[in-house]
Amino acid sequence: MHWSRWGDPAQAAPLTQSAFALVDAFIGTSDSPAVDPADVTLSAPLAADLLSGLAELVGSEHVLTDHETRLHRTRGKSTPDLLRLRGGDGSDSPDAVVRPADHDEVAAVIDWCVAHQVALVPFGGGTSVVGGLVARREGYAGVVSLDLVRLDQLLAVDLDSMTATLEPGLRGPQAEALLAGHGLTLGHFPQSFEYASIGGFTVTRSSGQSSAGYGRFDSLVVGLRVATPRGELVLGSSPANAAGPDLREVIMGSEGAFGVVTAVTVRVRRVPDVRVYETWRWGSFADGAAAMRTLAQAGVLPTVLRLSDEAETAINLARPAEVGAGPASSGGCVMVTGYEGTREALDARRAACSTLLSGLGGTPLGEDTGWAAGRFHGPYLRDSMLDVGVLVETLETVTFWSRLEQVYDAVRAALVDTLGEGTLVLCHISHVYETGASLYFTVAAKQGRDPVAQWRSAKAAASDAMIDNGASITHHHAVGQDHKPWLAREIGPVGVRMLRALKAELDPAGVLNPGVLVP
Amino acid sequence: MHWSRWGDPAQAAPLTQSAFALVDAFIGTSDSPAVDPADVTLSAPLAADLLSGLAELVGSEHVLTDHETRLHRTRGKSTPDLLRLRGGDGSDSPDAVVRPADHDEVAAVIDWCVAHQVALVPFGGGTSVVGGLVARREGYAGVVSLDLVRLDQLLAVDLDSMTATLEPGLRGPQAEALLAGHGLTLGHFPQSFEYASIGGFTVTRSSGQSSAGYGRFDSLVVGLRVATPRGELVLGSSPANAAGPDLREVIMGSEGAFGVVTAVTVRVRRVPDVRVYETWRWGSFADGAAAMRTLAQAGVLPTVLRLSDEAETAINLARPAEVGAGPASSGGCVMVTGYEGTREALDARRAACSTLLSGLGGTPLGEDTGWAAGRFHGPYLRDSMLDVGVLVETLETVTFWSRLEQVYDAVRAALVDTLGEGTLVLCHISHVYETGASLYFTVAAKQGRDPVAQWRSAKAAASDAMIDNGASITHHHAVGQDHKPWLAREIGPVGVRMLRALKAELDPAGVLNPGVLVP
Repeated sequence: MHWSRWGDPAQAAPLTQSAFALVDAFIGTSDSPAVDPADVTLSAPLAADLLSGLAELVGSEHVLTDHETRLHRTRGKSTPDLLRLRGGDGSDSPDAVVRPADHDEVAAVIDWCVAHQVALVPFGGGTSVVGGLVARREGYAGVVSLDLVRLDQLLAVDLDSMTATLEPGLRGPQAEALLAGHGLTLGHFPQSFEYASIGGFTVTRSSGQSSAGYGRFDSLVVGLRVATPRGELVLGSSPANAAGPDLREVIMGSEGAFGVVTAVTVRVRRVPDVRVYETWRWGSFADGAAAMRTLAQAGVLPTVLRLSDEAETAINLARPAEVGAGPASSGGCVMVTGYEGTREALDARRAACSTLLSGLGGTPLGEDTGWAAGRFHGPYLRDSMLDVGVLVETLETVTFWSRLEQVYDAVRAALVDTLGEGTLVLCHISHVYETGASLYFTVAAKQGRDPVAQWRSAKAAASDAMIDNGASITHHHAVGQDHKPWLAREIGPVGVRMLRALKAELDPAGVLNPGVLVP
Repeated sequence: MHWSRWGDPAQAAPLTQSAFALVDAFIGTSDSPAVDPADVTLSAPLAADLLSGLAELVGSEHVLTDHETRLHRTRGKSTPDLLRLRGGDGSDSPDAVVRPADHDEVAAVIDWCVAHQVALVPFGGGTSVVGGLVARREGYAGVVSLDLVRLDQLLAVDLDSMTATLEPGLRGPQAEALLAGHGLTLGHFPQSFEYASIGGFTVTRSSGQSSAGYGRFDSLVVGLRVATPRGELVLGSSPANAAGPDLREVIMGSEGAFGVVTAVTVRVRRVPDVRVYETWRWGSFADGAAAMRTLAQAGVLPTVLRLSDEAETAINLARPAEVGAGPASSGGCVMVTGYEGTREALDARRAACSTLLSGLGGTPLGEDTGWAAGRFHGPYLRDSMLDVGVLVETLETVTFWSRLEQVYDAVRAALVDTLGEGTLVLCHISHVYETGASLYFTVAAKQGRDPVAQWRSAKAAASDAMIDNGASITHHHAVGQDHKPWLAREIGPVGVRMLRALKAELDPAGVLNPGVLVP
């Protein structure tokens, strides 16, 4: 992962001439290069006596303080995170990076952090876009990044129960490769798939592009092993039960603030024989959304279901590689449907969906490979836009169907009102439920003099609009530092008390990812 | 509800001559009548000054201490509960019954209980079979039953989102009748359906006979309003989100120990046009279970799916009205499949399931009305057996498919070892998931001199077998007092700390259903 950009530098996607012209005309551009990585100012490394204490636990080769290692574990991948790094501000860097080998070493490092009042930030893929990797420093003897990269095993496969037990440091592709050896797949493909980790998926309640077919990540999890300052927590007797509150649902979404997940048992599926993606056109976003609602409520869903609004359709963001190459369709809204499975099941499912979609007024545009080819490519575009001085960021929410249009209007209005004329707001729906759906916004605007502050006020206005209209502050990006004030409004003072009580009980010294999640 | 039996006395089902002969031959019988209800000894009523305090909150007509009202709210409907009442022991009765009108009155009664150190037991349908209505008395100025019967409104219907907001005191049939006025159904039909309440379904994680098609009750819930000693808790911005731990999953399963649920927003479905039930025969329980697993993992499930083991098939328990009338099939195991929906969807689903089942070696026995007619009738049989001195009780568990046979064997062995020769253990699977399934046992044995103690030791042995073999202590009966020691083993010491921390935070005075749930 590039230190201040998304992903693999070899896959960087400079704007095409036509895309640049489009951006220049609509928003305006200016050359905005990043500083040299060597010039980024990091925090002071952890004190030598503390480092040797950690080395006794995990081996000195797994306690790192060099500039590059710490730089790569500084903050996450939100636009403010990137902007700060590009400007040379690495003040939120960890003071050391520790790489434990297994559950016992994770537990030992946690105990050590409690004993030495050192803040611990679990690190999986480093792809947080909500400040989930930015711990509070005040009151601590230092901040350590707990890199889970060595917890990378497929621990068990149960073909009867169709479950697999995975270690948290496995990145998406590593996990899929190990499972593929058994003919299995998680089917979890968020845009961050190539870098994000099993542990991160778990503690942030990730949701992937194939959620209509495979479910959200939290719906895949049936078992957890967690290292906490209070000792080991092992959950997961069964798919579902009535044995009190479901404590798995407390660890999921806990973002490293209650403990460190060291193993996850997940539902798996057979690797599909066939994958087919196709596109449909709708007269309007409302028509397409109503069709999605009909599919979800009829229980007839494709594996992938995504609908771009008019603006996103016009700019062709569903196919990142083709942005600016001219719209694929003549107006309206483009929907991507994807089907995966055995040939027979796929054909039956596709026929049922297509009949419904046609009946509701959708126009089939045929099979499509553009979306699938570019499905993980979106974030690279942002870097190219930041290079030319354009502020680009995404945000997302979820609510019930009856409030969806109202939330869509309110969030768009909040963004445009705050960022001013020329702001581009694109939106798509990519996760649907019987009772509601997500909204995912991409925003582009001319950068002001302080783009971090500029985005902070736009984000605050959009977040207010979500909460004021009864939506959630996040469908799948989690809470981190950035969403905390709105989480407090979403769950109210009694809900905040519940989170604080769990935090105080599980982490009485407050060393686990301090400042994250718990309002 | 009868004071010491299940359900409506008019529906009582004395054993037929052939059933009696069967029971007499296999287990042995003796006349075991109940005492007169007037002779049951209850606790002393609440002190007069406390009663007048409550009357100020809800009106004196809604504060009751008469013998009959308190008798009917004494304990739940487990066999030990019934045996104690039949013997005249009403020592766990509430000292008063309070009937608040709405959320605000519930909150006021909670505050009053905190101020006066009075234990509060929320009461919905009174159908707990795990001691969920038996509060600890020690340390309290009294025990009050909070009867939610007046919170019986359908508060809202959202046809776009396909959700409805219901008050907790609604019994199953009341809720269905109100929803039917909008063409809607919950599809939640546990055996206790005719008496159990919406609030009870929620806080016990109930699961109904149509769970394969409609889902467990906890999967229907999208929003909650809860009155707690710390104030009001309102949850439910969306179907699912990444806004931290899912606190709905903490209230679900909380059994009145964390707060009183005063409104529940649930996913609803259209009332089905057609319902078809049919039976299949399998050579063995293992073959039938493997077929269920195949259906669940293929995502091709009927609305109802239930498989009796050889013993339950032989005795015909799937059709309670026909028990003892001779087996419906010649050996093997009977499976009930049910389909509900529009004609077209039903036919397609049924064809897909039937193809799979035939291919796996099932023999179709044709359409069936016996199961559906008797689906809520099972509990009446128990009373008739208790009348003739036979100990009858049920227990249930859930685990992953790979452990199912091992758990089945272990629980049966534990029951037979403890209760001795002549013990009849019947079992069925009635809730399936991709990764596992439930096991529901019915046990019949000759009553000893102390049948409550006799059952307690059998239940303990069976519960040990569940936990020792990695299963859950309960699939859908909840925890109450009876399962608490095994819950502690299931979630471990850190899990217990989490529950205690939530309890201490939400109910610092400890007045909410003390002794229930939290180990």
